[in-house]
Amino acid sequence: MSETRTLAQWLVDSRLDDIPEDIRHEALRALVNYVGCALGGAPDEAVDIALRALQPFFGAPTARILGRIERLDPLHASLMNGISSHVYDYDDTTPKNYSHPSSPVASALFAYASVNRVSGPDFVHAFILGFEAESRVANAVYPAHYDVGWHITGTSGVFGAATAIGKLLGLSVQQMIWAIGLAATQAAGLREMFGSMGKAFHPGRSAQNGYAAALQAREGFTSGERGIEGPRGFAAVTAARYDLSKVTTRLGVDWDLRENTYKPFPCGIVNHPTIDGAIQLHDEFHPSPDQIVAVRLRVAPLVMDLCNQQNITKGLQGKFSVYHGAAVGLVRGKAGIQEYTDAAVNDSAVKRVRERATAIGDAAITEEQARVDVEMSDGRVLSRFVEASIGNRARPLTDRQLDAKFRDQAVLALPASQVDEVLGSCWRIDTLDSVGEFVAGTVPISGQGETATSPRSQTPTPSDFQEA
Amino acid sequence: MSETRTLAQWLVDSRLDDIPEDIRHEALRALVNYVGCALGGAPDEAVDIALRALQPFFGAPTARILGRIERLDPLHASLMNGISSHVYDYDDTTPKNYSHPSSPVASALFAYASVNRVSGPDFVHAFILGFEAESRVANAVYPAHYDVGWHITGTSGVFGAATAIGKLLGLSVQQMIWAIGLAATQAAGLREMFGSMGKAFHPGRSAQNGYAAALQAREGFTSGERGIEGPRGFAAVTAARYDLSKVTTRLGVDWDLRENTYKPFPCGIVNHPTIDGAIQLHDEFHPSPDQIVAVRLRVAPLVMDLCNQQNITKGLQGKFSVYHGAAVGLVRGKAGIQEYTDAAVNDSAVKRVRERATAIGDAAITEEQARVDVEMSDGRVLSRFVEASIGNRARPLTDRQLDAKFRDQAVLALPASQVDEVLGSCWRIDTLDSVGEFVAGTVPISGQGETATSPRSQTPTPSDFQEA
Repeated sequence: MSETRTLAQWLVDSRLDDIPEDIRHEALRALVNYVGCALGGAPDEAVDIALRALQPFFGAPTARILGRIERLDPLHASLMNGISSHVYDYDDTTPKNYSHPSSPVASALFAYASVNRVSGPDFVHAFILGFEAESRVANAVYPAHYDVGWHITGTSGVFGAATAIGKLLGLSVQQMIWAIGLAATQAAGLREMFGSMGKAFHPGRSAQNGYAAALQAREGFTSGERGIEGPRGFAAVTAARYDLSKVTTRLGVDWDLRENTYKPFPCGIVNHPTIDGAIQLHDEFHPSPDQIVAVRLRVAPLVMDLCNQQNITKGLQGKFSVYHGAAVGLVRGKAGIQEYTDAAVNDSAVKRVRERATAIGDAAITEEQARVDVEMSDGRVLSRFVEASIGNRARPLTDRQLDAKFRDQAVLALPASQVDEVLGSCWRIDTLDSVGEFVAGTVPISGQGETATSPRSQTPTPSDFQEA
Repeated sequence: MSETRTLAQWLVDSRLDDIPEDIRHEALRALVNYVGCALGGAPDEAVDIALRALQPFFGAPTARILGRIERLDPLHASLMNGISSHVYDYDDTTPKNYSHPSSPVASALFAYASVNRVSGPDFVHAFILGFEAESRVANAVYPAHYDVGWHITGTSGVFGAATAIGKLLGLSVQQMIWAIGLAATQAAGLREMFGSMGKAFHPGRSAQNGYAAALQAREGFTSGERGIEGPRGFAAVTAARYDLSKVTTRLGVDWDLRENTYKPFPCGIVNHPTIDGAIQLHDEFHPSPDQIVAVRLRVAPLVMDLCNQQNITKGLQGKFSVYHGAAVGLVRGKAGIQEYTDAAVNDSAVKRVRERATAIGDAAITEEQARVDVEMSDGRVLSRFVEASIGNRARPLTDRQLDAKFRDQAVLALPASQVDEVLGSCWRIDTLDSVGEFVAGTVPISGQGETATSPRSQTPTPSDFQEA
């Protein structure tokens, strides 16, 4: 039995009508989250540099990037979408394999759709299938593959892009097998790149190479027929232990989109319970920053290992400061991109609260949990114990919380007047006649995407340990 | 100590004058061998298909491919050169790591030189450095890396292309470190692709991605700084056992070009001793095919496992027939590309001799050896025992034998009148003012490269087991 062939056959045969309604809605949520991330990252210097380095080699400028004014060929557009959507480490995560699955798939699809007429239903269908194929390949090799040092978002991502584009190209089963094989043989991406622009490069290159794999397969460029399961195929070569049944078992019944999660805050996930608790206290009590006398945090010991920075001046440092997370939550009631700028770290109210915070690592507190106690000048103590942090499957972001996250990022690329229109269209993407028009609609009408200053530090973001 | 940094520093500091004369000559031999392979493969359908699939995405047509009339951007030209030069599995091999080292490096360099003015000395210098960097990275991870299933030509090749192009771009040490890191994180290529076009795709994609890595690094696109040796870097992730000292020990003293070998015949290497012996008998006795009564072969047992096909009609089958190898050696005194066409397999004299051949596997015969006994109708028995097959380091092809191999391939792409001129220029490549003119000189003046029919079967060539 060939897992590659079974998967290819399923992809070719799939009809959108066969896909449950909740999965189709989750696809929209994933796309809203993805587009927000791509817009937020679009002005980043990693994208600027990649554009500058490769622009002399761009093909006919038929395609658009999300959130920028440049025109370029769709293969390079896939690359740029991939970089922008992952550069803040703010995109989605499947906890089953710790990959960030939407970026490689959607980055290729939006580039494709910007030059080929693709209807909303076809687009969402291809996205769901690419996501599923990619995540199942990742499941088959996780955790050995990830543990040895592969950045699973890059390695599995190329399968997602190849199969999603392959679906839109209407590949035959034989062609889809070749597309999967050509994806397998380009699977790459090392965790050694974490902390550099190389990390965000991975989903970009995966999107680009997967797209090309589908194009080559359509024209008859052959590959090995057992790219996933062969004795020298992807699984055997890249994982000491693997379970190929995860590629094919209950295909069309179980869907990994159901397991997808969206990161609520653009910082190390170990800080999330603390931030969550602080925001809850803000929303309930609206404590005035100048009346906060002390903030006492009780957190998992790992938090103290990773995020024990208090005397900070840079936005990047804020991501690794549990004190800063607590402070922005209490002062601003949010912890979005704008709370991790240099300006936010040096904001006087935030700084005042941060400096009054103390933290204790406590082995009785899990990494999902945190206790936040805020002592006010009137003697009150505001307390919150977070049992399971927001953003997990147990407490998923609501659609409205995804809206807020989207807006927080999109304003980095787009004038505020454009943000809500793009957001509204994104929720309706499954009904559009042409997704290309949606992509064109994300181009900043003021040219802001070219001139806005990224809030991100010039220093590359060291990713936190749980990132994949 | 960082191997990546040491290697980068050495590459940046290297001067051509520091490189021994024999290495510089071996570089010319490697380039002659490479260009012959690239010309021979240029009309192949794998190149046609790749061009057809990707042409809509080509950038400005500033670059040339070796042996074809198309113009395209230099990144895609790197890809096409890589495919053409490896598609016959006829390029060079370093027995230390079983990679085919010239293709990824030279494929990128010729594409670069076709759009940027590069002098002959600078070109050869960059080639030598890229070859050395690539082969040393391969040495560090061989054999565990190869054994698990990596196509080491693809995985190490991207390092070669990145460093060679990086040298021509004049990268700083920091930039070279990033180029190496971006190469490391794109290292890919599975042996599962053997027997399909995917195999020849590997050096092509490596050339293209390595070239791009150098461009990105120049503009400041950062990577992890320990791409080779880091705990989640190339060596640790892709090899169960590795020896990083092989990357840096005796840099500038030992040169892997000294170990390079050139394949004398475009077929499974286990057939080479038999072919060698048959050609020697041809050259000494000129036996008339119709007077050959019997051909008795005594070969290593593995030959019988792999190449025991006698009743054949296709060129591709000839590659896996030790009888065919003996027959063309005896009848034609050569076993080049033209001896593995359908026409050659069905040539009446060749067929007659092939059908009179018998073979016995003998455990006393090594894979380097063969015994060929030819019984003639006049009662003579012509015998030859081959102790060590031609093409190995012990019996390297002479420069004139490389000429013959070059001509045998180049005629597939070029009119005969053009072949000797290109060959002559190739031997003088280190003295040229501009290597770009050399590349332009390989474009078929009759347009033959577009119309010639490839002698290769439509079926992809299954590679023999010892190929890397």
